[in-house]
Amino acid sequence: MRAKVHVFLKPGVLDVQGKAVENALHGLGWSGVEGVRVGKTIEFDLKASDAAAAEAEVKQMCEKLLANTVIESYRVELA
Amino acid sequence: MRAKVHVFLKPGVLDVQGKAVENALHGLGWSGVEGVRVGKTIEFDLKASDAAAAEAEVKQMCEKLLANTVIESYRVELA
Repeated sequence: MRAKVHVFLKPGVLDVQGKAVENALHGLGWSGVEGVRVGKTIEFDLKASDAAAAEAEVKQMCEKLLANTVIESYRVELA
Repeated sequence: MRAKVHVFLKPGVLDVQGKAVENALHGLGWSGVEGVRVGKTIEFDLKASDAAAAEAEVKQMCEKLLANTVIESYRVELA
């Protein structure tokens, strides 16, 4: 089973990396770009009996390691 | 128009960040995890007349700034 985890900074948290990208895009002439947010995507293969068990396991991985839940939110996708 | 750009290392390129995450997950007891790849997701709002023009513009941004096309591949999503 292939798992995909999307990790993003929570809406209220200042995204300095996103701001830097936004400024760089403006500098290159794309002035219509706004609200840039940069996140991480972590993909991996997982041995699991069923989708529900896999999702529970991946969520535990997020809470323990993949996301800093104080400032980041995450979304799990299984395929 | 909201654009989402997914940037990943190309398949042959060693993903050291992914390897580090994999080792950390193994260390925490998730030994069934394999083939971890870590990528970036860049989301932003874009002023564009139509979807085709927007996609062409975002692809140009990827080529110029958002992805290092020597070692990274990208995928554009528009919504």
